[in-house]
Amino acid sequence: MSVLIVGSIAIDTVKTPVEEHADLLGGSASYAALGASFFSPVNLVGVVGDDFPESEFAFWKTRNIDASGVTRAHGKTFRWSGEYAWDLNARETKSIALNVFENFQPSLPETFRKTDFVLLANIAPSLQLHVLEQMERPRFVVADTMDLWIETARADLDALLPRVDLLILNDSEAREMTKETSLIKAGRGICKLGPRFVAIKKGEHGALLFGDGEFFSCGAYPLEDIHDPTGAGDTFAGGMAGHLAGTVKKVHFTDLRKAMIYGSVLASFCVEAFSLDRLRKLRMDEIAERYETFKLMSQFEAPEN
Amino acid sequence: MSVLIVGSIAIDTVKTPVEEHADLLGGSASYAALGASFFSPVNLVGVVGDDFPESEFAFWKTRNIDASGVTRAHGKTFRWSGEYAWDLNARETKSIALNVFENFQPSLPETFRKTDFVLLANIAPSLQLHVLEQMERPRFVVADTMDLWIETARADLDALLPRVDLLILNDSEAREMTKETSLIKAGRGICKLGPRFVAIKKGEHGALLFGDGEFFSCGAYPLEDIHDPTGAGDTFAGGMAGHLAGTVKKVHFTDLRKAMIYGSVLASFCVEAFSLDRLRKLRMDEIAERYETFKLMSQFEAPEN
Repeated sequence: MSVLIVGSIAIDTVKTPVEEHADLLGGSASYAALGASFFSPVNLVGVVGDDFPESEFAFWKTRNIDASGVTRAHGKTFRWSGEYAWDLNARETKSIALNVFENFQPSLPETFRKTDFVLLANIAPSLQLHVLEQMERPRFVVADTMDLWIETARADLDALLPRVDLLILNDSEAREMTKETSLIKAGRGICKLGPRFVAIKKGEHGALLFGDGEFFSCGAYPLEDIHDPTGAGDTFAGGMAGHLAGTVKKVHFTDLRKAMIYGSVLASFCVEAFSLDRLRKLRMDEIAERYETFKLMSQFEAPEN
Repeated sequence: MSVLIVGSIAIDTVKTPVEEHADLLGGSASYAALGASFFSPVNLVGVVGDDFPESEFAFWKTRNIDASGVTRAHGKTFRWSGEYAWDLNARETKSIALNVFENFQPSLPETFRKTDFVLLANIAPSLQLHVLEQMERPRFVVADTMDLWIETARADLDALLPRVDLLILNDSEAREMTKETSLIKAGRGICKLGPRFVAIKKGEHGALLFGDGEFFSCGAYPLEDIHDPTGAGDTFAGGMAGHLAGTVKKVHFTDLRKAMIYGSVLASFCVEAFSLDRLRKLRMDEIAERYETFKLMSQFEAPEN
């Protein structure tokens, strides 16, 4: 089955203590769509400006990403510029220009409305709701969010949560949303706000999964060098949603465990290069290899070595 | 087989944002010995003062902890007082009185020198070395350390490392020791300093294990409430060393995976109450139950649910 992905499509400038690159493809939907495309066809919804390269549309076509939901509006593409601290954990936004994204009102092509799986990648919760209202009867809705919306659009977010099957957010956001210091309390608390499942991303420490009275914890893939953390969370969400759409009809907790590992594998490749550079040339056998490493690194009874 | 454990035995005062308790049994060896005793007999080495309760010696006897290496010296027992911040992650030492611990020179009873497994719990590396020099030919040496020794006794620590099979330390200490921000680089780097294996404790995020070219990652047991984190790391080390001594003759990476889970289980009980209160009444079936939870929470292929 396909997954509909809506989110931002951006042109980024990213600076790390080691390198700086400008005019990079970025945005939550760009990362999520490419991550998901390894496992299922993608219906992509977003907006770009006159300056957006046509070559990207051609690339999407080669990857089974249907971009008929991507509008080319008059004006410039959304631009974001950020800088990372020496440990790559803290990030500062240097500038944002919403441009054509400012008046983005996602309108789904008729053929997209029946898509079974939906990933509302990180955009304003009011836009995420607007997309859901156009869907006929999705089987499973995944939503990603961020601190900005928890702080500035909490009412919209609260309205969205009961309509979401899986909410994905990071550890500091989960704490902020619930005012709990314990991530265990936070994860269980967010389930009570509406979503059946909650995934908490912890960066280098892996991720936690809550829901249906169950609990799952996984580490992060052991990378020695990270070049650019931008988009790791979006790629994680895309990998999870894509894997679910591509492999199951009715989602159980067990399916989410596996999807979370695939999301982590995809994210581990994402951070190995700037922008989508590593993901563009990623092969399925490389994904399978890291998945096996995940199995070995988390096994403590009768491992295969 | 037995495990010899040497470390500090203290009387603590601990304050959390919720509670304060004085005159608690504490010290690295106290926690480690009780943790280990669930899996193997313990030969305990340490020093206490005149004020140390005789009842503790009686308790150790009931737990197969041979305290013939614990000297009762003239003076007061080592005292430590600490206070935790609201999130229980940051801790401030309010006062330390070394008392009889100041002139502690561990001298092993003749019968202890042949012990196969050794846990050098957290004390000055010069004392840890002094103990090793009295051992005949231990099969497996585990050492715990802390930031204080990395900062003030680095030469002693560097001399100790090649004689250690498994070094245990926490994430910030691993970063400090290697000047690496990546824990993966830090763990692999410490292996090059001498220890065959390195375990990095990450508190609520679990633990990592390095060595023999392998890697293992486990989460922490999902606790909603933590009452007193004091001694969690010592209990983790004791649980690991005790489980190895009690179950294997020649230690392989695979044995360490399992031992690390048992260490994590023991530590999860430790923090549920002040001092050793929870560990004192802990039962083997409770340990087995949490071990099973660990299995379920880290399985992502064909779980038993």
